[in-house]
Amino acid sequence: VVSLALALDTLGEEKVFSAVGMAALADPFNSIMRLEMDAPHRPHNPLINSGAIMVLSLLPWREGAEKFKAVQEMAARLMGKKSAEIDTAVYLSEKETGNRNRALAWFLKSVGNLEGDVEEILDVYFRQCSLTANCEDLAVLGATLAADGKNPLTGEQAAPPGVARIVRTIMATCGMYDGSGEFAVSVGIPAKSGVGGGIAAAVPGRMGVGAWGPSLDKRGNSVAGLAMMKQLSEELGLRIY
Amino acid sequence: VVSLALALDTLGEEKVFSAVGMAALADPFNSIMRLEMDAPHRPHNPLINSGAIMVLSLLPWREGAEKFKAVQEMAARLMGKKSAEIDTAVYLSEKETGNRNRALAWFLKSVGNLEGDVEEILDVYFRQCSLTANCEDLAVLGATLAADGKNPLTGEQAAPPGVARIVRTIMATCGMYDGSGEFAVSVGIPAKSGVGGGIAAAVPGRMGVGAWGPSLDKRGNSVAGLAMMKQLSEELGLRIY
Amino acid sequence: VVSLALALDTLGEEKVFSAVGMAALADPFNSIMRLEMDAPHRPHNPLINSGAIMVLSLLPWREGAEKFKAVQEMAARLMGKKSAEIDTAVYLSEKETGNRNRALAWFLKSVGNLEGDVEEILDVYFRQCSLTANCEDLAVLGATLAADGKNPLTGEQAAPPGVARIVRTIMATCGMYDGSGEFAVSVGIPAKSGVGGGIAAAVPGRMGVGAWGPSLDKRGNSVAGLAMMKQLSEELGLRIY
Amino acid sequence: VVSLALALDTLGEEKVFSAVGMAALADPFNSIMRLEMDAPHRPHNPLINSGAIMVLSLLPWREGAEKFKAVQEMAARLMGKKSAEIDTAVYLSEKETGNRNRALAWFLKSVGNLEGDVEEILDVYFRQCSLTANCEDLAVLGATLAADGKNPLTGEQAAPPGVARIVRTIMATCGMYDGSGEFAVSVGIPAKSGVGGGIAAAVPGRMGVGAWGPSLDKRGNSVAGLAMMKQLSEELGLRIY
Repeated sequence: VVSLALALDTLGEEKVFSAVGMAALADPFNSIMRLEMDAPHRPHNPLINSGAIMVLSLLPWREGAEKFKAVQEMAARLMGKKSAEIDTAVYLSEKETGNRNRALAWFLKSVGNLEGDVEEILDVYFRQCSLTANCEDLAVLGATLAADGKNPLTGEQAAPPGVARIVRTIMATCGMYDGSGEFAVSVGIPAKSGVGGGIAAAVPGRMGVGAWGPSLDKRGNSVAGLAMMKQLSEELGLRIY
Repeated sequence: VVSLALALDTLGEEKVFSAVGMAALADPFNSIMRLEMDAPHRPHNPLINSGAIMVLSLLPWREGAEKFKAVQEMAARLMGKKSAEIDTAVYLSEKETGNRNRALAWFLKSVGNLEGDVEEILDVYFRQCSLTANCEDLAVLGATLAADGKNPLTGEQAAPPGVARIVRTIMATCGMYDGSGEFAVSVGIPAKSGVGGGIAAAVPGRMGVGAWGPSLDKRGNSVAGLAMMKQLSEELGLRIY
Repeated sequence: VVSLALALDTLGEEKVFSAVGMAALADPFNSIMRLEMDAPHRPHNPLINSGAIMVLSLLPWREGAEKFKAVQEMAARLMGKKSAEIDTAVYLSEKETGNRNRALAWFLKSVGNLEGDVEEILDVYFRQCSLTANCEDLAVLGATLAADGKNPLTGEQAAPPGVARIVRTIMATCGMYDGSGEFAVSVGIPAKSGVGGGIAAAVPGRMGVGAWGPSLDKRGNSVAGLAMMKQLSEELGLRIY
Repeated sequence: VVSLALALDTLGEEKVFSAVGMAALADPFNSIMRLEMDAPHRPHNPLINSGAIMVLSLLPWREGAEKFKAVQEMAARLMGKKSAEIDTAVYLSEKETGNRNRALAWFLKSVGNLEGDVEEILDVYFRQCSLTANCEDLAVLGATLAADGKNPLTGEQAAPPGVARIVRTIMATCGMYDGSGEFAVSVGIPAKSGVGGGIAAAVPGRMGVGAWGPSLDKRGNSVAGLAMMKQLSEELGLRIY
């Protein structure tokens, strides 16, 4: 969601959503098939892998290093930290094993939908996937989005209210991969799942919640995180629907 | 949403969602392909055609006539009318031209997921699709769901609060067919689109909205209805996200 | 292949192959998905279920009973029998359990590709699937096709040479369902597999071979039939490639 | 077909066909979708792009340069030339624009089906695609395969008879991409189409035919080549079916 917020802030809603869709997807997060099936071969939403790669390619900086620096700064603003750092071991592992993401990126390139150097964009993507965030960071990120982009710790307006609102909406419909629909029924809060087992949730106008649990279900969502979020939502009445 | 509310009320959440999913679908509402691709060949959600047919088959009455009577009564309760009637011309037309729905139903039957007599269930489905509702009816239906199932006109509890909440959630994620994700961003209200050009929206705790416009976009949603809902949502601040 | 020969004979190559394709299919014989994916939703070849149903619908007789009578007569001519009879138990079972075929037929109807009454065409299809043929019948059928349509037992020209040639070609590329490519490499003879465990093979200009074995592999081909055909092809040098 | 012959010769039928299938494919030659849909994500046949890349990866030489040298030598033997050279302009263009092939290769890598360095294998593939061959070369190649691997010009046994036979069979079922089934009916000869507009055909035991025409139909086959082959097949009675 960090790069999505950054892209919406720097490029505007129209430009971003002409390059990626806003549709939830009943397919795994790394499916190439759907990209090939559905002309014009546009990623279905900005939170699946192909969409996240596309969003990074759109960012209005030429060099990969500049793009990543902007992503880092947005991450720091959203989480209220001095700086957002990557975990080098995770980064090297992602780079080593990210072959499906390479396939997705080259496919997008082959249909003319990806601008720029593929390996350079993938490198930014692998770096972004390696940004470290503990539970508290995820909670602050969620709280900032919940507070219309104003970080409740630092008081800084990390992103405009309109951007925060769109990001919350996309989180609600697509944030938990192909488990998003089920999560809406069982928990009912905009949330974004990360491949490392983290979940950042934003209850509009009320709070942010961070969760982390290493065991993932087959859709890539933290098992413990889902259970905790469900209980919390019921006890505190956090549903938006 | 009428038969979904009825099924949730009479069968419970668990039974309904073991037969149909809760996933938004980036495919047209009448796609058979997705049913065949994804074992166990369960409709992805209760609001696409295959899911609606499945929900009707689950209803705990043996005869088609009884099932439809229960659907009619639930529709009347939700809309605050003495009775909900079908438009015979629409019904005959649906029955005449509903061959894709026949294909969907026979496919579900062939994989062992549909109980009962296929033609009888289809007949209930075609009748349900022919239930008449004007804008006001749709608005009251939305308002009843928004008020946790209590019809604001009649004061009757048409459906339990938990059922109304689930129905609102499914409307939010799947109610506008494969345009649901885009509708969430542009309008941000739980809503259900009908093939006849109607839209019923439920703003939780606040109001229901009915819209009707005969011109449909390629996804099957009313063009005028979408435009009106967007403007209304912005002017009155109705977004839930 | 009986109804294909009949259709080619009565309607001509052009008309038949504007309604069904000639492409081998790497999908199961009863897949609806491929029909939906590939506009104009034309069955990929006349030997998969949807294609066979389509071919029957094309036959230039109005009533189902007349169509089936013509199929029976062609079957008898090809097999050199007085008459070709159906196995009533098989017919009733096919009719009872043929729901996937119903789904295929209604799908074809829904996209406007199937003329006539769906249930009536399906009934002809179920009857055709129930035509009895022992090993000798299958061998004579193969020999007739191998001899350019002239039945070697009766001396009758059951079908024109050009029709026999096309049927042999379609058998070679599509006759063993999605195992056709593998069969070409391992056996290398035009052959048609039946759901009941039979195989009829036509070695052009040389002979026909009939095989029957009840145990089917996952593609629907007789396990014993495949093994026997492979050995026979090697010993007698029957490959055409 | 050059690298397929080489792989069959050096590795044997079993090893090659455990890595790639033998199924004709009713999908475009560069489809990723089918690879993703069908576990175990094995290329459907050795003549589509993904299959050709896979075959090159299997060749029993470690370095890309050695692999390509072996391919060059096999090409020269099959075509009866001193050496087979690449067209540097074509090679650079393939390398520049071959992004879909990169996506295919990385996908195969991501599912664990491709051994070795992806970019190195792709480089061999792009080189192979750039091997020059005029009409006469294609005809000699076809004639060598038709003569069970014995080059009729040089008298050299370029490949074993069993290898030539399998290659002819795969050409017959898959050689014209998704137009293979139609080509079997209209022409009826084992043939391989190349992306540059060439066609090499092998009439078993009789002759080879080379064709070249730059205008391609939507399946990637030479329009003029198809027309010429059809006429030739009819006039000389070359059909194998």
